[in-house]
Amino acid sequence: MKRYIYADNAATTKLDTVAFEAMKPFLLHEYGNPSQLYSFSRIPKRAIREARETIASCIGALPEEIFFTSSGTESDNWAIKGTAFLNSQRRATITTAFEHYAILHSCKAIEQQGYPIVYMNPTSDGYITGEILKSYTRDKPFLVSVMYANNEIGTVQPIEELCTVAHKSGALFHTDAVQAIGHMPINVHNLDVDMLSASAHKFNGPKGIGFIYIKEGTKIPSYIDGGAQESKRRAGTENVAGIVGMAVALKQNCDHLQENNRHIEALEFELISRLNAAGVGYIRNGGENRLPGFISLSFIDMDGEAILHRMDLSGICVSTGSACNSVSTEISHVLKAIRLTDKYAKGTVRISLGKENSQDDVETISQVIRKIVCT
Amino acid sequence: MKRYIYADNAATTKLDTVAFEAMKPFLLHEYGNPSQLYSFSRIPKRAIREARETIASCIGALPEEIFFTSSGTESDNWAIKGTAFLNSQRRATITTAFEHYAILHSCKAIEQQGYPIVYMNPTSDGYITGEILKSYTRDKPFLVSVMYANNEIGTVQPIEELCTVAHKSGALFHTDAVQAIGHMPINVHNLDVDMLSASAHKFNGPKGIGFIYIKEGTKIPSYIDGGAQESKRRAGTENVAGIVGMAVALKQNCDHLQENNRHIEALEFELISRLNAAGVGYIRNGGENRLPGFISLSFIDMDGEAILHRMDLSGICVSTGSACNSVSTEISHVLKAIRLTDKYAKGTVRISLGKENSQDDVETISQVIRKIVCT
Repeated sequence: MKRYIYADNAATTKLDTVAFEAMKPFLLHEYGNPSQLYSFSRIPKRAIREARETIASCIGALPEEIFFTSSGTESDNWAIKGTAFLNSQRRATITTAFEHYAILHSCKAIEQQGYPIVYMNPTSDGYITGEILKSYTRDKPFLVSVMYANNEIGTVQPIEELCTVAHKSGALFHTDAVQAIGHMPINVHNLDVDMLSASAHKFNGPKGIGFIYIKEGTKIPSYIDGGAQESKRRAGTENVAGIVGMAVALKQNCDHLQENNRHIEALEFELISRLNAAGVGYIRNGGENRLPGFISLSFIDMDGEAILHRMDLSGICVSTGSACNSVSTEISHVLKAIRLTDKYAKGTVRISLGKENSQDDVETISQVIRKIVCT
Repeated sequence: MKRYIYADNAATTKLDTVAFEAMKPFLLHEYGNPSQLYSFSRIPKRAIREARETIASCIGALPEEIFFTSSGTESDNWAIKGTAFLNSQRRATITTAFEHYAILHSCKAIEQQGYPIVYMNPTSDGYITGEILKSYTRDKPFLVSVMYANNEIGTVQPIEELCTVAHKSGALFHTDAVQAIGHMPINVHNLDVDMLSASAHKFNGPKGIGFIYIKEGTKIPSYIDGGAQESKRRAGTENVAGIVGMAVALKQNCDHLQENNRHIEALEFELISRLNAAGVGYIRNGGENRLPGFISLSFIDMDGEAILHRMDLSGICVSTGSACNSVSTEISHVLKAIRLTDKYAKGTVRISLGKENSQDDVETISQVIRKIVCT
């Protein structure tokens, strides 16, 4: 098998081996449907309960506030579409122009049904400040939805402050934390958010499973109707193995957060230092308050896709924009939102380092970038 | 580990070992995001393409007519809610009173928004005939949705005939084939259905993955919005391992359909013969045209849950009603729809045999039932 240097951890991550081992029994012999009454279903039923408790404890929630979904995207659809049309007095959702498409396209869907959406522009270094949000809340929104960390430039938003502003205006607050969770400490009760979306495969869990935190007492109709699973709020036979894998992966990441991030930040520093030492010219997108390992670089008068392909020839995996947008060669909506000029925006690559990356990896990455950009 | 006799294959099934082996690489080293452009994502991308082709070939569809979802429930939600409100002239969905809750509760959700739903009652032996449907189509429905095989009594509906009636009236036709697919030959093009829902874990695939067949040219907006996955019709990073496991499991079941069903039908005959020989009194629910291995039995003046618990003590897994309803002791809506009297309905158990069951299993099951019912 060819050896790759995987530096696209913002797109997806490698499944944690401890998580895989925890999933295996539920893919093999513990296959009972957790909704059934007989003893054979006790172990899967208990596994789901324990996974819910684990996840809740990782983010400071109550177990009954965690609802399993199939993805961060489903969680986002639920939060955005589920709250629209609930209140005839307060009819508006405020979000940002640089959200993930799971939010933006959900917003578009309800906008087409006549529901008003307001898109806030971030600062040029990639932040939505409390001041920005304050200037919009006169519209009496029903919901404010701001991503925790941006998936292209990694900037971490001041969620606690934004949540306070939203609540003062009488709105609910949702955050798409898909990129952030498992990579920085998050405590939903301290933040006081009403809803939070997460996806397992972004924190070394399996693909096809996610969750949404919904604060106790928050009224939101279910998005997927059917059986009585998830306290009658999200139907469908539980993806037991996926749920177990997600919980173990999140716990692994949260338990080792400090050491992982120290390691990743050292690699990040090393990579940037090497590029600087080699005299590579670039703009680094997004301000200082960023997720560890997130490096969005723009090179003047270059083509991001060409850079990606040349890096691929050296076995390095990076992204030009967000994963879900990589088939398109248009300038990403995120780079537009931070008003990066076209001359730079077209030549943008996102390098996202993870806990599995090594010193050797960043040496190779910096050498290859230098070769591509300087020759 | 305790040995169980698993006779609840209608609730969920054991993952096929060939399917598990096929999933493993995608849970371990082939973790690339299929949307990405670099070489590392080629193998997962190809795996999804091949899985789509495999599934399409198993049901006589084109690959581009298969859309991966997280479950049969999600597929049903999409079909029912996605088609409501599309047409202002034709505003009604006709379904049946004995559908799975994934259909019934989706219908209820749109009914609450003012969209009319008509519920057809089946015959007392559990069928919706063409004549029944014909008597309802004067309402000019936009959609007719009838399950392929009932999940409690196993009766197989005359889908081809129903589809013809629906189309003659100008309606689209959807079938929830979650219980049927992988257990009987199904060819969507011969049937001419417009949409068909399926769930992997019902045909020895993994939990947390399903699909919907949508006939080419059928206009239905996406239900989960976001990234450009699934030809922009169903967003969210693909559950690669789940998709691969589903395709392999369906192919395994379809390739061995005749021999599996011969085996299961022989066991079913054996079980019924033994009960009869022992003079056990029961009503068998549903007419002759049933899924193999589906045995819904009602015992006069008994309590289904008590029977279930006593069978559980002998290590036998059966169900009282549909899996999603088993926490409730109410008489199931299916048994009500076929007008079974309460005296019998309350004492109902569903035994659903699968390809892994043996002669020994049915011997034990018949002995235990005899003990419970006759003493």
